[in-house]
Amino acid sequence: MSGNAIIAQSGGPTAVINNSVCGVIQEWYRANTGGKMYAGIAGIKGILEGDIIDLGYQDPKVIDGLRYTPGAGLWSCRYKVNGDDQEKLIDICKKLNIRYFFYNGGNDSMDTAYKTYQAAVASGWEMQVIGVPKTVDNDLPFTDHCPGYGSAAKYIATTVLETGYDLQSVSTKTKVTILEAMGRNAGWLTAAGALAKRTPDEAPHLIYLPEVAFSKDQFLKDVEAVYKRLGYVYIVASEGLADADGNYFCASDNKDAFGHAQLSGLGDALKQVVEGELGLKARCNTLGSAQRSATHWASKTDMDEAYAAGATAVKYALAGKTGVMVSLDRAPGNVYQCTMGEVPLEKVANIEKKIPLEWINQEHNYVTQEFIDYARPLIIGEPTLPMENGVPAYVTIDRNLGKVNL
Amino acid sequence: MSGNAIIAQSGGPTAVINNSVCGVIQEWYRANTGGKMYAGIAGIKGILEGDIIDLGYQDPKVIDGLRYTPGAGLWSCRYKVNGDDQEKLIDICKKLNIRYFFYNGGNDSMDTAYKTYQAAVASGWEMQVIGVPKTVDNDLPFTDHCPGYGSAAKYIATTVLETGYDLQSVSTKTKVTILEAMGRNAGWLTAAGALAKRTPDEAPHLIYLPEVAFSKDQFLKDVEAVYKRLGYVYIVASEGLADADGNYFCASDNKDAFGHAQLSGLGDALKQVVEGELGLKARCNTLGSAQRSATHWASKTDMDEAYAAGATAVKYALAGKTGVMVSLDRAPGNVYQCTMGEVPLEKVANIEKKIPLEWINQEHNYVTQEFIDYARPLIIGEPTLPMENGVPAYVTIDRNLGKVNL
Repeated sequence: MSGNAIIAQSGGPTAVINNSVCGVIQEWYRANTGGKMYAGIAGIKGILEGDIIDLGYQDPKVIDGLRYTPGAGLWSCRYKVNGDDQEKLIDICKKLNIRYFFYNGGNDSMDTAYKTYQAAVASGWEMQVIGVPKTVDNDLPFTDHCPGYGSAAKYIATTVLETGYDLQSVSTKTKVTILEAMGRNAGWLTAAGALAKRTPDEAPHLIYLPEVAFSKDQFLKDVEAVYKRLGYVYIVASEGLADADGNYFCASDNKDAFGHAQLSGLGDALKQVVEGELGLKARCNTLGSAQRSATHWASKTDMDEAYAAGATAVKYALAGKTGVMVSLDRAPGNVYQCTMGEVPLEKVANIEKKIPLEWINQEHNYVTQEFIDYARPLIIGEPTLPMENGVPAYVTIDRNLGKVNL
Repeated sequence: MSGNAIIAQSGGPTAVINNSVCGVIQEWYRANTGGKMYAGIAGIKGILEGDIIDLGYQDPKVIDGLRYTPGAGLWSCRYKVNGDDQEKLIDICKKLNIRYFFYNGGNDSMDTAYKTYQAAVASGWEMQVIGVPKTVDNDLPFTDHCPGYGSAAKYIATTVLETGYDLQSVSTKTKVTILEAMGRNAGWLTAAGALAKRTPDEAPHLIYLPEVAFSKDQFLKDVEAVYKRLGYVYIVASEGLADADGNYFCASDNKDAFGHAQLSGLGDALKQVVEGELGLKARCNTLGSAQRSATHWASKTDMDEAYAAGATAVKYALAGKTGVMVSLDRAPGNVYQCTMGEVPLEKVANIEKKIPLEWINQEHNYVTQEFIDYARPLIIGEPTLPMENGVPAYVTIDRNLGKVNL
């Protein structure tokens, strides 16, 4: 089927999300169908507003630079499509003769892709719709893992290793370091801290995941026990810790010296509890958005898989597939092998995959070897980045070049 | 003069502090004096407690691994020596025939080194005392810059660049990103964020330094102006911002929806102010100790200079110099050239070097080109680290090997 293609991104970026976009674009041009490759600027919202460019006008070096550039290279949105949107979207696709629709994102984005697929079917507009997965949270189902997770996991593991060295060498003052990790409902990023540990006494010592209920009392007992043994404690905690009733943990019921209630993020809340109730000086590192954008320390494995996922999406679409997301399938056995597969968008949309409970220890304060075996291969390899003036030479798409006129 | 040597570290670590220790140790063995090289474990406090090892027992590969290992490889302390300590210290040096004393640290450590030098002179014990500078804060005087600063600056600049890409590509939700940088009194690390900026609209947009008084009202006006122009705002702020009277800024006079006063770190305080008074969703990234331990992204220039500073200390001591700190001297001109020099410990001890006011813009919300020209050469080059299982193969000194018996 001759026609044009479009690619857009939505949700939070990852260190390798643009690798997938690059894979889509370069595979499309390699296929040489004669059709154009459009980009929707800032996701489905941009497409609906007509903010669409023909990527053929971009410098091919900039397109190639997407392989090592963080952020959402085509800009992102967080927007839930409604019925009117779907009709409008199909109209735009008709006007531009778009027959291949690629959408790159996480759970919500796969919902958008699924609705787009449904709208195309309902309207009788022949268009192949393929989802390209990404999320640092690693919470998409029916795929072994998600592009973006390995890089964030490598960055977090390395940071825990490095700040663990810092803590254990200066523990005459600060006794407790807390690293707050992203992932409100799924603990994959938090658990990645365990990849730093090489010997029993090394950081991290305690890991708290949102998959199990958090108890402040047990937490304080855990910290005290490690402190008595080693003299310092390294904790990795999910931003989304909650008690058995689902109430997020924060230190709001703790008072400072002036009787003020204290409100803050999870890491700061734990710091206040450790200092207030155990009298141990604590430090909280909140890496925030650095976790999902540290391309300088991305996983090469992750980068390559992200690119392959994008390229595979084009191959699938040109082979007539539609309504599917590209999945990453791991071969059984001890040697890591990952191949591209597919899963119906209908099954993926809006479902969150959490850490299996059997990968969390009985004490609910660490992960098991099964998690390590699962995650280790995903963080292998480092990128080689072009550098300029001491920082990576990241690229930027010119969003005003080749604008379409609807 | 025949005799033994000792090296110890104190204060907060840097990404390259162990490079200097490695330089001291390897240069000592290269000089082949026949004397031993001892290490004081955990700084001057460890030496006073007799926690001293003969480094000759360590695996040379571990010694070499200090070139790329974060944390304080010989452990650190924060301890102010008194008169009794000085006497005890000289006794220990006599017992072990220590004639060369190397101390690696920042302002406080140079004070310790100076007092050790004075104690040696007063007691008539012939011992060369040399300070080896380190500090991420870059606040030692009479040296162009300090080993440790370039690496932290490179890490911060890269993080601002990467999280800036994140912000500008997803600004449909979060409008403001705040990076809280270390440096309570001197703004060198905060200012390093400016090294991320390549074009006028790129991050960072605003930089707030502790060298000038912080005004909340002016801050809010600054943020609003950038937001109106671009739709998003990236701020780098020192943890030590204070008003004209020297009161540290925090959000404690702001109330949340429940009327609770809110206390937190500087970055969180700014986030609360931006959200509460401008209604813009903000995110705060607090890198914390990662700033001073991210050896995976150290500056090669900094690593090499840190090693040279350590090696130079040994050369100076063997040449009969004492009571000095090794300084890093920059040649005038546009081409960066750095050579090793010296400065009397007496002049360095306890003095903080701040950013010159003429390197801060008139609006007090950014740095000038002079700062960029100063800092740029310090962040050039990347390390090549041995890797194992996806994380750097950092080493650990065996602190129980070759223990001395006093």
